[in-house]
Amino acid sequence: MKILLINPNISHSVSDLIASEARRAASPGTQIEVVTAPFGVAYIETRFEALIGAYAAAQLAAEHEARYDALVIAAFGDPGLAGIREAVDIPVLGLTEAALMSACMLGKRFSIIAISRRITAWYRETVQSNGLEGRLASIRCLDQPLRDIGAVQEDHETRLRELCLKAVEEDGADVLIIAGAPLAGLARSIRADIPVPLVDGVSSAVRHAETLIALAPGRARAGSFAAPPHKPNQGLSPALQALLARERPAA
Amino acid sequence: MKILLINPNISHSVSDLIASEARRAASPGTQIEVVTAPFGVAYIETRFEALIGAYAAAQLAAEHEARYDALVIAAFGDPGLAGIREAVDIPVLGLTEAALMSACMLGKRFSIIAISRRITAWYRETVQSNGLEGRLASIRCLDQPLRDIGAVQEDHETRLRELCLKAVEEDGADVLIIAGAPLAGLARSIRADIPVPLVDGVSSAVRHAETLIALAPGRARAGSFAAPPHKPNQGLSPALQALLARERPAA
Amino acid sequence: MKILLINPNISHSVSDLIASEARRAASPGTQIEVVTAPFGVAYIETRFEALIGAYAAAQLAAEHEARYDALVIAAFGDPGLAGIREAVDIPVLGLTEAALMSACMLGKRFSIIAISRRITAWYRETVQSNGLEGRLASIRCLDQPLRDIGAVQEDHETRLRELCLKAVEEDGADVLIIAGAPLAGLARSIRADIPVPLVDGVSSAVRHAETLIALAPGRARAGSFAAPPHKPNQGLSPALQALLARERPAA
Amino acid sequence: MKILLINPNISHSVSDLIASEARRAASPGTQIEVVTAPFGVAYIETRFEALIGAYAAAQLAAEHEARYDALVIAAFGDPGLAGIREAVDIPVLGLTEAALMSACMLGKRFSIIAISRRITAWYRETVQSNGLEGRLASIRCLDQPLRDIGAVQEDHETRLRELCLKAVEEDGADVLIIAGAPLAGLARSIRADIPVPLVDGVSSAVRHAETLIALAPGRARAGSFAAPPHKPNQGLSPALQALLARERPAA
Amino acid sequence: MKILLINPNISHSVSDLIASEARRAASPGTQIEVVTAPFGVAYIETRFEALIGAYAAAQLAAEHEARYDALVIAAFGDPGLAGIREAVDIPVLGLTEAALMSACMLGKRFSIIAISRRITAWYRETVQSNGLEGRLASIRCLDQPLRDIGAVQEDHETRLRELCLKAVEEDGADVLIIAGAPLAGLARSIRADIPVPLVDGVSSAVRHAETLIALAPGRARAGSFAAPPHKPNQGLSPALQALLARERPAA
Amino acid sequence: MKILLINPNISHSVSDLIASEARRAASPGTQIEVVTAPFGVAYIETRFEALIGAYAAAQLAAEHEARYDALVIAAFGDPGLAGIREAVDIPVLGLTEAALMSACMLGKRFSIIAISRRITAWYRETVQSNGLEGRLASIRCLDQPLRDIGAVQEDHETRLRELCLKAVEEDGADVLIIAGAPLAGLARSIRADIPVPLVDGVSSAVRHAETLIALAPGRARAGSFAAPPHKPNQGLSPALQALLARERPAA
Repeated sequence: MKILLINPNISHSVSDLIASEARRAASPGTQIEVVTAPFGVAYIETRFEALIGAYAAAQLAAEHEARYDALVIAAFGDPGLAGIREAVDIPVLGLTEAALMSACMLGKRFSIIAISRRITAWYRETVQSNGLEGRLASIRCLDQPLRDIGAVQEDHETRLRELCLKAVEEDGADVLIIAGAPLAGLARSIRADIPVPLVDGVSSAVRHAETLIALAPGRARAGSFAAPPHKPNQGLSPALQALLARERPAA
Repeated sequence: MKILLINPNISHSVSDLIASEARRAASPGTQIEVVTAPFGVAYIETRFEALIGAYAAAQLAAEHEARYDALVIAAFGDPGLAGIREAVDIPVLGLTEAALMSACMLGKRFSIIAISRRITAWYRETVQSNGLEGRLASIRCLDQPLRDIGAVQEDHETRLRELCLKAVEEDGADVLIIAGAPLAGLARSIRADIPVPLVDGVSSAVRHAETLIALAPGRARAGSFAAPPHKPNQGLSPALQALLARERPAA
Repeated sequence: MKILLINPNISHSVSDLIASEARRAASPGTQIEVVTAPFGVAYIETRFEALIGAYAAAQLAAEHEARYDALVIAAFGDPGLAGIREAVDIPVLGLTEAALMSACMLGKRFSIIAISRRITAWYRETVQSNGLEGRLASIRCLDQPLRDIGAVQEDHETRLRELCLKAVEEDGADVLIIAGAPLAGLARSIRADIPVPLVDGVSSAVRHAETLIALAPGRARAGSFAAPPHKPNQGLSPALQALLARERPAA
Repeated sequence: MKILLINPNISHSVSDLIASEARRAASPGTQIEVVTAPFGVAYIETRFEALIGAYAAAQLAAEHEARYDALVIAAFGDPGLAGIREAVDIPVLGLTEAALMSACMLGKRFSIIAISRRITAWYRETVQSNGLEGRLASIRCLDQPLRDIGAVQEDHETRLRELCLKAVEEDGADVLIIAGAPLAGLARSIRADIPVPLVDGVSSAVRHAETLIALAPGRARAGSFAAPPHKPNQGLSPALQALLARERPAA
Repeated sequence: MKILLINPNISHSVSDLIASEARRAASPGTQIEVVTAPFGVAYIETRFEALIGAYAAAQLAAEHEARYDALVIAAFGDPGLAGIREAVDIPVLGLTEAALMSACMLGKRFSIIAISRRITAWYRETVQSNGLEGRLASIRCLDQPLRDIGAVQEDHETRLRELCLKAVEEDGADVLIIAGAPLAGLARSIRADIPVPLVDGVSSAVRHAETLIALAPGRARAGSFAAPPHKPNQGLSPALQALLARERPAA
Repeated sequence: MKILLINPNISHSVSDLIASEARRAASPGTQIEVVTAPFGVAYIETRFEALIGAYAAAQLAAEHEARYDALVIAAFGDPGLAGIREAVDIPVLGLTEAALMSACMLGKRFSIIAISRRITAWYRETVQSNGLEGRLASIRCLDQPLRDIGAVQEDHETRLRELCLKAVEEDGADVLIIAGAPLAGLARSIRADIPVPLVDGVSSAVRHAETLIALAPGRARAGSFAAPPHKPNQGLSPALQALLARERPAA
């Protein structure tokens, strides 16, 4: 199996974290690659940044999907996920969605641990659009400026552990989701000290991608995840244009 | 007042419909202009097309907002609306949101009349993200191929009237929203024959834009609609870059 | 355009606040009048008081609607709004509904700032009956006795500002609604110091009333906002009786 | 025990149906009385009529409550119920609420059988304000003009039986609520032929009233059902005035 | 009338509390009996313990139902309630459901007072499965080890009173539910000191059982509470086997 | 990895279907075993049957879990799942939950295809308790008697295909869940003819079990999925008793 993780942001240091955690999580025989957005911002905290990241992810998906068995949109918040799922012919997963699915199989109510206060609204809306807000116990977040997006784990580990314990003790979380590509791998390193299961988006997404490839449930040729109907377009990259023009079997 | 309507699609014929209805609806003294996306698709029916339209709308918003008092994202489904609202310093409205607000002041439950079956999932999710799914009586839609996106009203008026009556009689709608820029103005022309209030997105958005300009409620400097925090970016258009780099007063 | 604001309570000092803010908010050429309930209580905090105010508002609506283009029920909580909307032939708006609509076009989650703890349950239920509880971040309230209902703004301005800031910082509000006719105009006077948009019910209602008049969406002749079916009645005021007996065109 | 049922409408024939079913349902030793509204409409189908009935019910409650152990607002839709519950010192029940409580103890999802299409919106909103919309399987209704509100059962029994069977077979109802005072007693007479439990509002309300009297849970002196705070009022009936002026023990 | 309360746990001291409160609450002429589970745990705090209690309750229900007019599953959380309701031919009630119904007739939002932190997740899920989570103000709980499950009231009365007052003052509860068979009767003894109505599960269940017996709404022969369809089984107790094999009239 | 699937029913023919599909779905190197309930019913359609199956599953889980890396409760509806997850120290999955998680990664709204009308209420409640009812497009079911629970696929394949197509065309499903162990494997055999992804519970559960084993998120020592607190018990099987008495590390 070949899985491509798309970092919809421009931070190569975060791509390295993603690649490292993804390779650690993958089954033997699964090949992992990561691409980094050629345009966009350092990391996504807001809906506007997500809008940019979604377009970058769509571009990269169109360029690369032909050579992979599944794609992962490797930013928490899943920018562009639902749209890209319509357009390409292989499974597409997102870090939030994948983490939510893992969390739901480990407990009833989950909390999310996040890297900034500003990011929490976007995360809340992502949980809502997954229809799972009723199981969200809380979102707890760092509230200090981030020196270096590739070094959040080292810089803030103590505080992140505290947030985890608070979510369990005060918010009633059964499971914790360590959110955001910059925290990829943290779940593994602090697991022993936190008294509830910890879920990581990157490793969840890689494993669930392998599952969807193996289950081979079939591609949507009808319903709202069939490919967009053919219609005039202009000004798009050759890869996007080719993707929209691709002929598919009718429903 | 100067209001810019941004057509996030490439169809100039639809931009003409939008401009015409917008000017008819505007207060005396309000100037209306419409711009058309330089890249994208003919009209949006899917999440993937919305993702493209959102990016086009964001580009146009960044380029033009300095010369206007309010922006309207002039496609039903409001591609990019929440993100653009964060980034610019003037009110931003969308056709769906504006139509929903009008409908809520005229009755309790509303139905949406749409131009294709495929478009309904995207509309439903837009209503959900507005938190108003509990008041959605139904979405009724045309189910025939569209010959010409600028001529949907003439080609399908009889069927559209039937859909309106069905929504009242069978779905319990108190109000009807005629959805989508290609249907701009239809509400006005069939109003006399439909026994419940009819809401049009373009005219609602223009009037609500005037209201937000007049009320001058203040720009968000905190909360999740403050401008995105400054951070590194690359590969963006000069206008987007300038928008993200703009200095704003602190909260 | 002629708009009548109906104060469903007996406090002339509050009617004066309403009139003043309404006139400030209205477009040039719009005429504003205010009537005060001849029976009822000083201001509404509870469901029982709202029940009385609703009946007073209905009486006043029946007596006056023939000479206006729109009515506004000028108490937060909108006593009688949905019922009166059925009965009269012109648009009817309420302060809560109008403020909610403004708030929804400015952000995602809103908080309400209220004049007493007791009033909060009624406000929460009004938000619920608008179907918008999912976007309510919090209701924050004064908790001291009110010396004079016409002087709440002067007496409690410092505390009201504090409540606003708390709602932004601790509850995650994107927008604030300054609730209740006794606070009409406060939003304008403290706007510069609060870092998110502030919404006022009276000015929102006046502007939205102008919009509904201009859009002319049509009167419901079917659905649950058509006029009540003719049937025997007794003991009602002449105006109410005439309203219920009015002949209307069939659906 | 002495229980007063308040018919908030002017139809004495319906009051007779109420009295008859209430007496049949009451425990030995319970005294049942019924009063009829001196002003209002023949029966309530709309929010506006409910607003009038609520005020009539409040007046009657204020006049009579001193001589009873519990009150029942004897119209489906419970006009004024929540308000009157605040104001008087004895338990107050409504037909809808009482029927919903019975239904919830007999199955998971219920349908409501109603006397007119117009009435269904009001019923749906009553279920919503009870927080139970998630358990509402459907509302099925007669759709012919009613010759005589006191004779609906005889005139339409065949159709009402059909509606009951449809709700079970097509809507998945576990329990049926026969709604509206004009149908009081119908549940009993058709019970043997309907394959799920049938709930009647009047008999449920009488029995639940006896229960609340017996349980003696205490009167609210705090929270949102404490009596309305003292404040100036004018123009109210002597009974209402006295009720609002009554001194109660502090919380 | 003869009502059997089934303690699904093995604690005879709790059965005694249940019997005592049930007899105090019952109408004259109602006979109350209590049986105690022959297998299971001392008291239920978790889903796993509830699963065991549900099976014990089902066994006891099958053995005894023929000699009673109604059954009460006498543990808060209602283990097995919905299943047993399908299987037996008489009304079956649970402490939580019965308390919720009482609370809903006394106010809008209720809090639950519970004996341990661990038990709160199970209670929350019970409220959710009743569809009433929207009215749940809070669950407040003791957080100290319980010396003796039959003596919780004496050991912790002061703390339980404090929890009641906090729920009213800080959580906005209109009504309080004193939860769990070990607290049966506490509501009565502290009622005078708490400023909102207090609801007890045992007394509510007994009274509501009398009501369902008296209303005689009919047994479900269709819908999801009809008896389970006949099919092969093995290894069940004779009573369970006989219950599943019983012939019933067709729908 | 060693995974045990627990058939909570007594039908060995269904256990064979489960084993066959589970082995086909498992990764190389994963060992699959299936045990069949020694007591209970042929298959579960109702809450009462689920209550019995839950207890049987709990017994089997207690007896066998020490020798496996994960358990699967192999009946749609997941009898006992949440409780057993608390009690054992390895991941526990259910067919419904696993299928829901797969479906959520393939589309937005899903329909469930079921073997009988009676079973649908139980399935609906299972989706609700997973918090995902907002994404449920419909449940479609066979409505003929089942000749042989091990032969439903052969006997009813044509009708099952029809139900699938109806759910896509009329209900708006993006994904279909083929529900119930008796239909294990059907998804695979009809996949090519159905125009949306098909999800099977058994194969989903096996793959997700492998994922949870590999991710090793940690066992809950706090929160509502920690092991039940120690307390007196009696009359339980030795395996259940040992499980409840097991010493675990503190939180």
